[in-house]
Order: sequence, then C-alpha cells, then structure tokens
Amino acid sequence: MYSAVIDELIEGFERLPGIGHKSAERIAFYILESMSADDAERMAGSIVKAKNSVRLCDVCQNLTDTSPCPICGAPKRDRSVICVVEGPEDVAAIENTHEYNGLYHVLHGALSPMDGVGPDDIKINELLLRLADGEAKEIILATNPTVNGTATAVYISKLLAPFGVKVTRIAHGIPIGSDIEFADKITIVKALESRQIMT
Amino acid sequence: MYSAVIDELIEGFERLPGIGHKSAERIAFYILESMSADDAERMAGSIVKAKNSVRLCDVCQNLTDTSPCPICGAPKRDRSVICVVEGPEDVAAIENTHEYNGLYHVLHGALSPMDGVGPDDIKINELLLRLADGEAKEIILATNPTVNGTATAVYISKLLAPFGVKVTRIAHGIPIGSDIEFADKITIVKALESRQIMT
Repeated sequence: MYSAVIDELIEGFERLPGIGHKSAERIAFYILESMSADDAERMAGSIVKAKNSVRLCDVCQNLTDTSPCPICGAPKRDRSVICVVEGPEDVAAIENTHEYNGLYHVLHGALSPMDGVGPDDIKINELLLRLADGEAKEIILATNPTVNGTATAVYISKLLAPFGVKVTRIAHGIPIGSDIEFADKITIVKALESRQIMT
Repeated sequence: MYSAVIDELIEGFERLPGIGHKSAERIAFYILESMSADDAERMAGSIVKAKNSVRLCDVCQNLTDTSPCPICGAPKRDRSVICVVEGPEDVAAIENTHEYNGLYHVLHGALSPMDGVGPDDIKINELLLRLADGEAKEIILATNPTVNGTATAVYISKLLAPFGVKVTRIAHGIPIGSDIEFADKITIVKALESRQIMT
C-alpha cells in the first residue's frame, strides 16, 4: 500500500529486463531515500536524451547518436574486415578485448523461423550494400553459437559466396580457464572438430 | 565503445542497488531498442515526479505523497496499535499479508554504533511524540532480527517503559514451510525459547 507515485515508480522499473518486484522496490526506495534530487533528475534526463538522440549508424547499424558511429568514423580502424554480430552488446564485448581493430555490422537479431524472424527482419540487406565498394575483404561471422545464431551465420555465408570475400566464423571450443570436465558435450565435440596442429 | 549518451544511460542504471554493469547494459539496450518513446518518457517522468512529490508522512514517517499517508489517514485502521519497522519495504511486506490493521512507524534505519548511527539519526523522537495523545495502547517492535535491529528494539522498549503502553516484539522461530534441519542454530534456539503451550 504505497502512494500512487511510488507504485508507478516501482512498476516502471519492474518492466525492465531482469528486474523483479523486490529489486524494483529496492531501486525505488534508493531513488527516494538515498539519491540526490539532482542525480534523479540527471538519470531521468539521460533516459529521455538517449531515447531521443540514439539511432542506428547508417553504416554498421550499431546504436549511436552520431552517424557514422565512433567506430565506423575512426580513421585508424581496418576497413577491410567486418565482424557481423547479433546485437550492440556483442560489439561492446569484442571492443572490451582491445584486440579487434576492424569494423562491425549489427544484425539486431538472428534468423528465427519459429518466431517469424526472416532475413528481411534483421539487417542483412544493409550488410550486402556495404560490400558494394569492394573495401571489405573478410567478413567474420560472430553470431552466437545457438541454433538461430548458427543458422544466421550459414545463411549469410551462402549469400556472400558470390561476392568473392573471405567469410569466416569465430571458433567455438573450451573456454579459457574452464575445465573440460564441466564443458557441455556439444562444446567438446566442437573443440575436437576444430583441433589445431601444434607441431 | 558506446556513444556518450548510451554510456551515460548505462552508468545511471549501474549506480542503482543490485544492478551490475551487464544488467545496466541490458536495461539500456532494452530502453533504446524495445521500449516505445512514450514509455521511456513516462518512466523518466515517474522518477522526477516521485522524487519531487514523495516525502515523509508527518505521522508515521513512511514515504508518501500525501500527509497523512493513506494508512495513517484511513479511518478503519486500529489507532491503538503501532508497529515499528526499520524501512518502508517492511511496511509493504506486512501490508501484503492483509492481516494487520494497526498503524506503523518507520524508523528509517536501526541503531548502529559501528556506523555512527545513534538514536537521533533515526525516527525515534517522532515515535515518542506520537504517544502524547494516549491513543496508542500497544507498540509492536518489528525491527529485523539482526544485531542492530535487536539493539534498536531493546533501546526503544526501555525508552517506552515509563509511558505505560504495552511493548511487544514480533516472534522469531522456524519459518513456515521450511525444514528444522536447515534452520540456523540461533533460529532454533529462539524457536525453543519461544515455545508455546498447545494443550
């Protein structure tokens, strides 16, 4: 039996992914009891500002408030490689390694016939259009190793065959630092299949 | 390497309790990709509105946008019983049982000498002032069964001794539906101490 405004605040947070009723309550009380009015205002402002200014990069389809996005616009990036991922969070994960210097292409999903997601529902056309200028020499397919992600990678690799670009798939295997005994069967099979010559 | 506005959005959510970097990212992308502009605007508005309009009830010190709050203002509540709790979330938990019909008093914390929280830092004075009109006949101390919560209950019970009101403490024991074998030692000791005659 909270006041209506508190209920509304809790319900707002409850609608976000991964936040249940208890967490939404805790967050609401944190905002009301511990946050300064300025910080609360700033947070509300950042939601509106981001929602209004963020759109998709014309080139790579990543979320951005400038177009081209910082990555596509960076002069030092290797424009001959495009890494194709399902979502913006995958770009962030790969960028955090600081080991990849090429460009990206964000599909915003994966093919999923069961959910009615076909090739026209994700940004595959936009990828094909990028190949027109002949700058890209390699397309790395880094969709997730799920049924849908794999299907998407296979579909795109077939589409790209006539373009004469190198199409690669990220490797799957035992994650570094984990035990083989705890790996699932499919990962072990993949790791054996993709074994590499050492000497 | 997100745009500045996206980073700001992620950082805003990361500052909330119980939300790590990954969850903040997921929430930010949900807002940017799946939420309607209207819903985002409404959510931002509810933060500002709640922060601006919510204050403490003059009577019970619970968070509210009206004073007295809906509970203190309800004519059907039993004004002879005041249940003293640490925070607004405890009021919500007890209200959800629909079994308690008295009033509340929210302390906004518990005594904690280690953290420098003394009697003047929580709403104990406000509780004493409520006893002036003689309406309250029983004070139920429902602070948490932690060291600080128990210390607070003992402190308040001593303060209230001269007022001639009945002071009670909520019972501690084995939670309903759980197994005795999994209960911690202190809970078992409390459950034995508080045993009640059945026949």
